[in-house]
Amino acid sequence: MTFFIFLLACAAAATTGVMFKPGPWYESLTKPSFTPPNWAFPVAWTIIYLLLAWAGYRLSLIPGSQTVLALWAAQIALNTLWTPVFFGAHQVLAALVILAVLWVVVAVMVVLALQLDVVTGLILFPYLAWLCVALALNCSILMKNRL
Amino acid sequence: MTFFIFLLACAAAATTGVMFKPGPWYESLTKPSFTPPNWAFPVAWTIIYLLLAWAGYRLSLIPGSQTVLALWAAQIALNTLWTPVFFGAHQVLAALVILAVLWVVVAVMVVLALQLDVVTGLILFPYLAWLCVALALNCSILMKNRL
Repeated sequence: MTFFIFLLACAAAATTGVMFKPGPWYESLTKPSFTPPNWAFPVAWTIIYLLLAWAGYRLSLIPGSQTVLALWAAQIALNTLWTPVFFGAHQVLAALVILAVLWVVVAVMVVLALQLDVVTGLILFPYLAWLCVALALNCSILMKNRL
Repeated sequence: MTFFIFLLACAAAATTGVMFKPGPWYESLTKPSFTPPNWAFPVAWTIIYLLLAWAGYRLSLIPGSQTVLALWAAQIALNTLWTPVFFGAHQVLAALVILAVLWVVVAVMVVLALQLDVVTGLILFPYLAWLCVALALNCSILMKNRL
């Protein structure tokens, strides 16, 4: 049951990707050579959201996991915020700040999760890795374009 | 410390109100007579977000609160999603669906919180009450306008 509550939270975050898609504005931006192709984003995020819900479920079974679950809540709110700020409001600098805070929250969540349960920490690793790519991409787009 | 993590999650949700403000589009809508004045929204939400962070903190101190914290995470993601969908994408029907799901999640969270700690349940009551107003308003706007 708890797995599906976490999955609902991830579905809310995923909905931003359906509502605020990359359009002509994103296509017109100068992007770095390491930019993943457009199809890679929904694929990566689908996998990450499923892993996130699984990690949340595993954490919820561990006594004393409340602080990590607070971080889980903070990351899903920041995650839900990023897409409309970038693709909706085209606020690339604000999006970068949100992404940097999100990265820190997820990094701390991974460290604390590893201490509670190594498997859960590993389940969260692809998320942290993908956020590194997203941070580099957002930062590069900010520098390469007059925004 | 945990209080500030929950407050960060609320800050992410609150940022949507700064990024996606009511503009000419919202002003032009036909609204019901019970529509609160514009100033009431940031005031109500500031109070509600502080109460939400406080409730999250109180819940995090209670053993066995993991399922309620999962609901807390789901509600903050749905809360963060609503504003850009309504004020950003102008998708009034989709916003209504999101708000209805949010209402159910918060109602279940309040019921479970009351069982763990009566005070925390009461702290969350203004949120549920305000969501009733928001639901009625969103629904009425959908019916009164050709959207």
